Amino acid sequence: AVARGGGLLVAVTGETADPGRTRAVRDAVALLLETGELPLRAHRPGPGRVALVGGGPGDPGLITVRGRRLLAEADVVVVDRLAPRALLDRLDPAVEVVDVGKTPHGAGPTQPDISALLVQRARAGRRVVRLKGGDPFVFGRGGEEVLACVRAGVPVEVVPGVTSAVAGPAAAGIPVTHRGVAADFAVVSGHVEPGAGPGSVIDWQALADGPATLVLLMALDRLGPAAAALVARGRPGDTPVAVVRRATLPDQQVLVATLDTVAAEVARAGLRPPAVVVVGRVVALREQLWGGAPPAPPAS
Amino acid sequence: AVARGGGLLVAVTGETADPGRTRAVRDAVALLLETGELPLRAHRPGPGRVALVGGGPGDPGLITVRGRRLLAEADVVVVDRLAPRALLDRLDPAVEVVDVGKTPHGAGPTQPDISALLVQRARAGRRVVRLKGGDPFVFGRGGEEVLACVRAGVPVEVVPGVTSAVAGPAAAGIPVTHRGVAADFAVVSGHVEPGAGPGSVIDWQALADGPATLVLLMALDRLGPAAAALVARGRPGDTPVAVVRRATLPDQQVLVATLDTVAAEVARAGLRPPAVVVVGRVVALREQLWGGAPPAPPAS
Repeated sequence: AVARGGGLLVAVTGETADPGRTRAVRDAVALLLETGELPLRAHRPGPGRVALVGGGPGDPGLITVRGRRLLAEADVVVVDRLAPRALLDRLDPAVEVVDVGKTPHGAGPTQPDISALLVQRARAGRRVVRLKGGDPFVFGRGGEEVLACVRAGVPVEVVPGVTSAVAGPAAAGIPVTHRGVAADFAVVSGHVEPGAGPGSVIDWQALADGPATLVLLMALDRLGPAAAALVARGRPGDTPVAVVRRATLPDQQVLVATLDTVAAEVARAGLRPPAVVVVGRVVALREQLWGGAPPAPPAS
Repeated sequence: AVARGGGLLVAVTGETADPGRTRAVRDAVALLLETGELPLRAHRPGPGRVALVGGGPGDPGLITVRGRRLLAEADVVVVDRLAPRALLDRLDPAVEVVDVGKTPHGAGPTQPDISALLVQRARAGRRVVRLKGGDPFVFGRGGEEVLACVRAGVPVEVVPGVTSAVAGPAAAGIPVTHRGVAADFAVVSGHVEPGAGPGSVIDWQALADGPATLVLLMALDRLGPAAAALVARGRPGDTPVAVVRRATLPDQQVLVATLDTVAAEVARAGLRPPAVVVVGRVVALREQLWGGAPPAPPAS
């Protein structure tokens, strides 16, 4: 099936699809050629701007349609270590990609460096996408980048993303809420040391008492102290815990233990970051819902 | 220049156009195949299956690429009241759309009815998308639908979505976490009556003491009791609160008040569900970050 328009010839053939679908796609492409809705990346300079885009948990299919489209239109992409990097392979070679991903304990650009970079590129008339893992406003420091852009007079947009705090558990077959099991959940940064005294920004007693499900992000390095802090404040030591490493990616791993055993089990398995940790009765739903066959990571 | 996707091969050649434009159109077609914006629905019957798709907070651009693609391939779409309904307008007229949205206090199919419908359609060989608002596992009762499918031997997949718990605040310019302000947040179902005694599934004392940011979903009908429960248990009455109605949609409304005043302000403004309620110091970031010009809802 062939469509013509704008000096182009577009041929659509089915590799596995049926003829009806091949014709339907041909007709849709012809319409887009006719209406001028193709292509996306402008070759003329426009006003510079910044979009903070939540890339989702890692699977390139879990970015939003709006985020994906902004990425296709970008002149510059500034990318984190935990962003869905498979998306970078599909960028036009003329797009400038700046990797600002820090290794967990290593060096890398500081947050003010990154903010200054976004502002500088936008002021030079470039369309900048700041591609983040998860959501820009869930421990993504999006607020700081918004502030830098607004202060510099640079137009900035925030495109929310699928947060790993919810999608990480889901990828292992675990809903963070479930009727009769959990009507609330809390999401906590594991970068904060538990029990750091009354000045601590996190109230571990309230977390131990409170939300039925706890999700700890970036917590693998301090998992022992965090689990001990919860048990010392009254969460039962046999509370189930799941650790989901590289959630939604083909090499995803899941480890199920309890608050008492999880730190030792993670050490024994040699699990390294990044991982999402889920604490609570919902972890048991992994077996109950899926009949022993919880979802597998994507095949590709 | 060649693009592949959805079992199709699309070849773009220039009759009179330059190679740059040929490649640009190829990339644009590849993006449309990837995001499901071209008609991907097979005209041949396949094995029946169910996908629980998180449609995001309401803006049709905030569904995931994977969810959008499954929607384009669906034979049957079973849709909630709070799902991004603008997406339905773009379905092939031959697609069966079943609206199972309940009015807040009205009648509608029960959860077992909905689960039975999904199983029945999939057993008849249809590709079923269960399109939900937000994320299927954040108060979306996705676990119950997974269980029904697994028990019936129907293949089921869960596609996470952008949760309104994070995107609702973001749409009003409010990050749920921010360095030095909030290192944890809790998400709570407002359907649960506060102070329902020791049998209550929600510990309001822990919520009052604990996570720096609280997000209450489906809470507008019980906002007075919820705010009073938090204040009675020690959250300061002057804690800022934002109510974001129809977040990310063109008619979005935002009301900012305090725990002491929010119920009266919502009543005075006549705000009706659906709305997301954010409690905590992060609410003040709305003014601080955006310099008095927080993001506006989408123009279309």
